[in-house]
Amino acid sequence: MSIITLTSDFGRLDYRVSAMKGKILSLNPEVNSVDITHDIQAYNLIQASYIVRNAYQYFPKGTIHIVSVDSFFHKSRKNILYKADGHYFLAADNGILSLIFFDIKPEAIYEITLNNRFDDIVNFTSTDVFVPVAVHLANGGLPEVIGRKIDSVKQLLFPKPVYNESEKMIIGEVMYIDNFGNIISNINKDSFETLAKGFESFTIKFRNLSLSKIYSSHTEVVADWERETEYHGQSAAIFNDSDQLELTIYKGSKKNGAKTLFGLNVGENIYIEFF
Amino acid sequence: MSIITLTSDFGRLDYRVSAMKGKILSLNPEVNSVDITHDIQAYNLIQASYIVRNAYQYFPKGTIHIVSVDSFFHKSRKNILYKADGHYFLAADNGILSLIFFDIKPEAIYEITLNNRFDDIVNFTSTDVFVPVAVHLANGGLPEVIGRKIDSVKQLLFPKPVYNESEKMIIGEVMYIDNFGNIISNINKDSFETLAKGFESFTIKFRNLSLSKIYSSHTEVVADWERETEYHGQSAAIFNDSDQLELTIYKGSKKNGAKTLFGLNVGENIYIEFF
Amino acid sequence: MSIITLTSDFGRLDYRVSAMKGKILSLNPEVNSVDITHDIQAYNLIQASYIVRNAYQYFPKGTIHIVSVDSFFHKSRKNILYKADGHYFLAADNGILSLIFFDIKPEAIYEITLNNRFDDIVNFTSTDVFVPVAVHLANGGLPEVIGRKIDSVKQLLFPKPVYNESEKMIIGEVMYIDNFGNIISNINKDSFETLAKGFESFTIKFRNLSLSKIYSSHTEVVADWERETEYHGQSAAIFNDSDQLELTIYKGSKKNGAKTLFGLNVGENIYIEFF
Repeated sequence: MSIITLTSDFGRLDYRVSAMKGKILSLNPEVNSVDITHDIQAYNLIQASYIVRNAYQYFPKGTIHIVSVDSFFHKSRKNILYKADGHYFLAADNGILSLIFFDIKPEAIYEITLNNRFDDIVNFTSTDVFVPVAVHLANGGLPEVIGRKIDSVKQLLFPKPVYNESEKMIIGEVMYIDNFGNIISNINKDSFETLAKGFESFTIKFRNLSLSKIYSSHTEVVADWERETEYHGQSAAIFNDSDQLELTIYKGSKKNGAKTLFGLNVGENIYIEFF
Repeated sequence: MSIITLTSDFGRLDYRVSAMKGKILSLNPEVNSVDITHDIQAYNLIQASYIVRNAYQYFPKGTIHIVSVDSFFHKSRKNILYKADGHYFLAADNGILSLIFFDIKPEAIYEITLNNRFDDIVNFTSTDVFVPVAVHLANGGLPEVIGRKIDSVKQLLFPKPVYNESEKMIIGEVMYIDNFGNIISNINKDSFETLAKGFESFTIKFRNLSLSKIYSSHTEVVADWERETEYHGQSAAIFNDSDQLELTIYKGSKKNGAKTLFGLNVGENIYIEFF
Repeated sequence: MSIITLTSDFGRLDYRVSAMKGKILSLNPEVNSVDITHDIQAYNLIQASYIVRNAYQYFPKGTIHIVSVDSFFHKSRKNILYKADGHYFLAADNGILSLIFFDIKPEAIYEITLNNRFDDIVNFTSTDVFVPVAVHLANGGLPEVIGRKIDSVKQLLFPKPVYNESEKMIIGEVMYIDNFGNIISNINKDSFETLAKGFESFTIKFRNLSLSKIYSSHTEVVADWERETEYHGQSAAIFNDSDQLELTIYKGSKKNGAKTLFGLNVGENIYIEFF
């Protein structure tokens, strides 16, 4: 029996999340549904893709992930079943799948036609389209039964960092700010290290601050653990669990974390100059 | 094995929600509990009834719904087991059941006496009264064992829209504002359509704005899907999934949704004038 | 099959909570995980200990509780498996276990060495250390397999109330403020009653207010239930479910609850004078 995960921008107050869970249990009381998050900002595909991309990998292969962000039903827009990395994803054809899998090729893509055939009126895509398809798959049903194979989905471009050759500078931007106020950029470790090979040193610049070292974890900042409290509040750059460049304040929180102290917002630039 | 749903105003931080789940699992580790929401405003029976009414219908018949809002134990107030529409509901006799089922007759009502007999001291109604009764039912136990049949519960009146004959005007009010800032009124489709038959046209008025069309879905606002982005921010009235009149901003969010742009609050009036 | 509970300061938006759940299901799809809360303030061990202490007791004996607060991996800091009161607890050796069990002796303490042997690099303690150990225990595995017995954990002192003999006064402080704005102090019923035996009366003082009675429940404030609404907004002191002295406004909420009306914050003093 497969697992179904739920991601949405519905928030925790409305009845919509429990409607999805109730519908799943109505179709098969044995299916396990797990929340990823329902606190995505309304219609924020970038934020949703960052979270789903990082979360899905922890689940077993074969898990079915419903991504209900910007999924209003419209007859002119497809609903998609997307198989990649051994997992199934259900979403509207709004570009989010291309953001989650910007570097991974799909194993198969289906336009969901179940609904076109059986029911002309969809009130709420999540319970009327995504849940029945998800439970069909969880029950061991074949994708071919609920849709027809297609070749591609809507493509959205993730804002990528740019390398300026004449300035010897990577220009990236803030992609996401987490619960502790940590600032996550779109600059990843691989591309940084490839470029860094040709130089002796570098400086990370943002606002009017600069850092010249990248740690490999939050606690690497603490050179002497016996004096750990002395490091509270220290600013640092790290490559995080997802190998993205992250600006952080050691033991910072929402109130006095990196976002607040550095003053950066999503979309602002972060520069790495090489020497 | 039945499902138990949980609705409360306890919030997500306190230990109370997990106390209920722990107690359920202590009594029967096989019972599945599902959150509807725990973010109800303190003691807000109207808000809770709107959410429970919309959520419960998605669950299988026989589901047991605990509604822990305004449920402080007091020896002078009954605790109720209410069966309606094939589902069970547990709540204090504070009027919420009459709000959820303002138009549906109960199949049976029981005053919970389990507690009166076995344990004089109730610290926390949810774990000490509702959970044991819910698990008793989930295990296939009979209502008669835990309570005695009664005829009615406390009645509260849902604020109903009024039709002013001389002004040819429906006077409704804002009942609920959802996570996207959409404004949901107490005017429903059936009563609107019955009245509208006698007239050629109508205008919806609120604050200093007016709308003269009601769409049947959010995306019906988008006449041309190829130019979908041009419709972002357009205001509209729709009959929503629950057939209530809703004022919305297409692709609005909490920050720039209908609530913010229209400036309406719960309890404010919305008028429909007929011509 | 045991239950695993999850407590953290990760918030609801990030992928970290679902990463833990996905990892649990990847290791054993039959294990039930239950959230206690993920809304702990960043690194707030006092708040986390108050919630975990009150929540764990509702779960069946043998439940495994993961407490991911201040749990960054550092080679100089142990990770702990702590058995007390028939339950298992997993946390970093940061003092939180001494706060949860300030008055209960552990049955056994293990330093987790699983990780030291199998994998030198821990990116994320919760999924890389706590989850594999928790699932090992849930599967019926022995603690000895994943760690070595040790004698004690890091000790932190819970701020305790002080009795000033010459002033005949208990000096306590605000420990926690709940979702309704209720103010929970560190003064407990037992120690109050022991002292109170020697006196005729007492006054509870805080800010410029005073109360001279302690109720045994919120609804005991309501002397006449027929006139229950007349008691809304009445301030009172009670010994709560956990037998801690609590200052409350009857039917108060976050907006007009005790915290707001009394103006108290965590850490501020509350005095009880005896006469």
